[in-house]
Amino acid sequence: MSEEEAARHREKMARRKTVQDAEVAGKTIEKGLLMVHTGKGKGKSTAAFGLALRMLGRGRPVGVVQFIKGAWSTGERAPLEAMPGLEWHSMGEGFTWETQDRERDVAAAQRAWEKAMALMARPGLGLLVLDEVCIALRYDYLDTAAVVAALQARPPGLHVVATGRNAPPALVEAADLVTEMALVKHHFAQGVKAQEGIEF
Amino acid sequence: MSEEEAARHREKMARRKTVQDAEVAGKTIEKGLLMVHTGKGKGKSTAAFGLALRMLGRGRPVGVVQFIKGAWSTGERAPLEAMPGLEWHSMGEGFTWETQDRERDVAAAQRAWEKAMALMARPGLGLLVLDEVCIALRYDYLDTAAVVAALQARPPGLHVVATGRNAPPALVEAADLVTEMALVKHHFAQGVKAQEGIEF
Repeated sequence: MSEEEAARHREKMARRKTVQDAEVAGKTIEKGLLMVHTGKGKGKSTAAFGLALRMLGRGRPVGVVQFIKGAWSTGERAPLEAMPGLEWHSMGEGFTWETQDRERDVAAAQRAWEKAMALMARPGLGLLVLDEVCIALRYDYLDTAAVVAALQARPPGLHVVATGRNAPPALVEAADLVTEMALVKHHFAQGVKAQEGIEF
Repeated sequence: MSEEEAARHREKMARRKTVQDAEVAGKTIEKGLLMVHTGKGKGKSTAAFGLALRMLGRGRPVGVVQFIKGAWSTGERAPLEAMPGLEWHSMGEGFTWETQDRERDVAAAQRAWEKAMALMARPGLGLLVLDEVCIALRYDYLDTAAVVAALQARPPGLHVVATGRNAPPALVEAADLVTEMALVKHHFAQGVKAQEGIEF
């Protein structure tokens, strides 16, 4: 790179830094966020557990409620539970085609939601992960309006992340952050199986 | 729900289970995956660190190379480093508008890539996280063709996840999994600042 080019780059980046600094300075609000990870792609729960790790790393307690997944083992659970401040409840009974019993699915989702509400009331909780709650909402195992109202009434400093495909419009409307994990390409379509350390 | 409805649900789910089981049975390949988290939404690095946690939880070593972020502290680093098997290198010097020096940015990216190649050659590594490598590729700090060729020549059992906006087409083409974290709604636009435990 010539000296002239280097100088042009420096000037351009200095201007960009002025813009960036002004943007950062304009953001002053601190609040507990309602976050949604939805979409057909991989990474919704994984990113939620990444947030749990980050929050625990900051020394604040985290609650996890799994609405669909039940007893089966995932790689992240043991190391998260080894950290102080984590409370984890897998309240699901597996996918709806595994239970084949809608009333049992509804009852399991209701129990999970009661656990979630108890955790929301816990003073000082930093983050609540509602894993796959969107699936429970989608199948009407839970009343979306009631769930959204309870989430909106959460303590002001509490961050909540809700995951699962097909987040209902009312939840998206109420949320501060919505990321759609969009499937561009997936190895399952190429015949690759679920592998330890990646999918579970 | 009437008994008739319950029976219809049971039958429908039993059919669905047959389809699901056949799909799972059809997936037999095990291989180290090349994964890409791209897009403008939040969750790219967070999901990559969630994968690191999952892999460490399965007892397999993980390497992390950060291409842009430098010395600043993130909540997930300390708890991940407390787990056996993690090796973490933050090789960046900050955003390009912070350094304001393109040659320094290029040199930092090259050093990060050398570290990544050394980790790829490490026998038994389960997962390599190339955090924000897509940004280094996007700004031509690294040669995309050379990076993609090296990734394709990685050991067969090694999973790699590359993060960052604007993943180059050649990387997307070579990847087994690509998730676009699409920004549906972001709290920064509402004046909310970056908060501990959520953004860092």
